Amino acid sequence: MMCVMDSAAPRRARSAEAKQERERAILAAARTLGGERSVREVTLTDIAAAVGMHKSAMLRYFETREQIFLALTAEGWRDWATAVGEWSADRTVATPEAVAAMLARTLVARPFFCDLLAQAPMNLERNVSLDVAYRFKMAVFAEVASVATVLRERLGLAEAEAVDVIATATGMAGALWQMAAPGTSLRELYESRPELAHAVIDVEPRLTRILTALLVGYQAGAVR
Amino acid sequence: MMCVMDSAAPRRARSAEAKQERERAILAAARTLGGERSVREVTLTDIAAAVGMHKSAMLRYFETREQIFLALTAEGWRDWATAVGEWSADRTVATPEAVAAMLARTLVARPFFCDLLAQAPMNLERNVSLDVAYRFKMAVFAEVASVATVLRERLGLAEAEAVDVIATATGMAGALWQMAAPGTSLRELYESRPELAHAVIDVEPRLTRILTALLVGYQAGAVR
Repeated sequence: MMCVMDSAAPRRARSAEAKQERERAILAAARTLGGERSVREVTLTDIAAAVGMHKSAMLRYFETREQIFLALTAEGWRDWATAVGEWSADRTVATPEAVAAMLARTLVARPFFCDLLAQAPMNLERNVSLDVAYRFKMAVFAEVASVATVLRERLGLAEAEAVDVIATATGMAGALWQMAAPGTSLRELYESRPELAHAVIDVEPRLTRILTALLVGYQAGAVR
Repeated sequence: MMCVMDSAAPRRARSAEAKQERERAILAAARTLGGERSVREVTLTDIAAAVGMHKSAMLRYFETREQIFLALTAEGWRDWATAVGEWSADRTVATPEAVAAMLARTLVARPFFCDLLAQAPMNLERNVSLDVAYRFKMAVFAEVASVATVLRERLGLAEAEAVDVIATATGMAGALWQMAAPGTSLRELYESRPELAHAVIDVEPRLTRILTALLVGYQAGAVR
């Protein structure tokens, strides 16, 4: 009995480690491909080819293409919340303008995350099991709570106001990023025709303006 | 010559009329199906079956499934801008709270339009010819200008501020509607677990709060 456990435990550990390594490789491949083109253009076959696995073998690690990108969305939330926390750690007070500019800057600096933010509720969450969706939501809530703490401490917002600001920052980062359509023939069209000038969206200043007005409005007690 | 023209003109007219009638029938079928389930679940085959046409015949009227839904998105913009205009015609002044509530109410009353608003930049505009995308953009700009006039006249917003408010109202209506996931098993999950209470999104009050703060912020001269 003792002997069996002794030999089985390291084997399980090795196997768990190998599994994690495979998962990491799959996520890394999807991250690279998603950064190169838009998420909607990356198929499961593309990811399998990049990681050198057969598609059917990859499905032992992730149940769908969408689960892979949902895991990267959760990773994006963690990474973004960390950047917001680091910004906050460097200061004791902040203005609505400074917070708005920071939120916009940190989001726009993560174009893959912006793409995922719009994809998640429409496509990703709907093509995974409820268990995966549940764990994703819980992971996101933890990051929302962390960013909300920064907004409450630095600007004195109420909890519900902070959550609204985060929903607007991430929702509009996703929406504006899709509308901006960077690197596409649509974007070329917008830039080539003066009458389409309004369609040429520069996400960071646009998002900064919207979030500044929103934060000023909440600070003015607009919705108490 | 005279004789040829006499007989050809009505034939062309009949043919153009028949074509328009077919187009109207296709749009009506897509509108009904899109209202029954989410837009992403409606295929070209579904629309063809509903209208009693062969898929290949339908492609003589619309180049892709996405062109059909893009036409319905433009129709949604016209319909929504008309509702905003009617609201405005009934009053001479308005508060940010009243305008925010009206914008949220008129958008949420159009769930199919909310669904399309999120689909358009991510999926629809990207799967049509540049010519179709161009005409769609020009049609939307006309409606944005009409709603912007209401916001400028009723709240004294600058043009760029009005355009930002419209982008936020429609962008967040689309994003929140997707997040709310009405009628899905995801929504049932959110409602069944107390720890997921934050995921249960009631779009109209949420959007009203966000737009109120935004309008108060712009009126306070947040971004001048």
